[in-house]
Amino acid sequence: MSRQSNRTTDSKKMNAELFTLTYGALVTQLCKDYENDEEVNKQLDKMGYNIGVRLIEDFLARSSVGRCQDFRETADVIAKVAFKMYLGITPSVTNWSPAGDEFSLILESNPLVDFVELPDNHSSLVYSNLLCGVLRGALEMVQMAVDVKFAQDTLRGDNITEIRMKFIKRIEENLPAGDE
Amino acid sequence: MSRQSNRTTDSKKMNAELFTLTYGALVTQLCKDYENDEEVNKQLDKMGYNIGVRLIEDFLARSSVGRCQDFRETADVIAKVAFKMYLGITPSVTNWSPAGDEFSLILESNPLVDFVELPDNHSSLVYSNLLCGVLRGALEMVQMAVDVKFAQDTLRGDNITEIRMKFIKRIEENLPAGDE
Repeated sequence: MSRQSNRTTDSKKMNAELFTLTYGALVTQLCKDYENDEEVNKQLDKMGYNIGVRLIEDFLARSSVGRCQDFRETADVIAKVAFKMYLGITPSVTNWSPAGDEFSLILESNPLVDFVELPDNHSSLVYSNLLCGVLRGALEMVQMAVDVKFAQDTLRGDNITEIRMKFIKRIEENLPAGDE
Repeated sequence: MSRQSNRTTDSKKMNAELFTLTYGALVTQLCKDYENDEEVNKQLDKMGYNIGVRLIEDFLARSSVGRCQDFRETADVIAKVAFKMYLGITPSVTNWSPAGDEFSLILESNPLVDFVELPDNHSSLVYSNLLCGVLRGALEMVQMAVDVKFAQDTLRGDNITEIRMKFIKRIEENLPAGDE
């Protein structure tokens, strides 16, 4: 679907449940469409990427956030502004690598997985993998190449949900980025 | 995906954009999966139905709305409470049939279609058809069989977006309803 360019910051606040259930329908559809969990994970990441490259425009307009000085500031903006805005939660930023190029987002709750249980035959499914793609796509549009993945997931039996983000490189401004 | 039964009314408020884009990814995926728009419309309705039969539980818990006296009260609750809660909008209720068994919801804006343009080759796509399924499924769980369809859609060139709802019958309480 293409989108018009007359973006405004007029927005509707909504409860997450309809989104949660619609996301569940999307994941279920992909599980029907693709042979294995790895392929579904890849598709979710790709869809998320395409969403991220579009969502960043809305985010910048709505948040009035300027260019981040460093990766630490980026981490704070993602956790405190972006997650709050689009998912209504504020993950904590932690587990920084000594070089300052890696950190974790710890999600105390994850609206995407509310009321979800993974069936036994989908033990490799990274159910919320769309989020990784969204972050990757959005950051690419502000010239940051990052690696994003779920390190832990309560849905898969871990005690916490942890998204690990690794800075790879700054992208030259004149390289166009677009749909994958 | 199955869901746990320990539902709470704890909820996250979020902006609609991530939902809007995720819904777009779902529709795009279905357009890849199915041969024609009619089949996509049918799938969206079916997915919506399955969402509606689940969402009603959350709605009743969150809204404290009791049993409606008549279809007019149902219409008001749908427009002023349910749409407001899950999509952040309040459609107007209008165009009542003389018998009081049909009405229209007029959506001044529809978060699902923000920034969407239908490609020429999808002229029969009822892009937001999930909503019809949600309404049908949710109402079935409170013993009301209804017919729900888009009568007009700005996405398809109409001046307004109009969902037409028709009361069919009251369902006997002892008939179990479930996934289609």
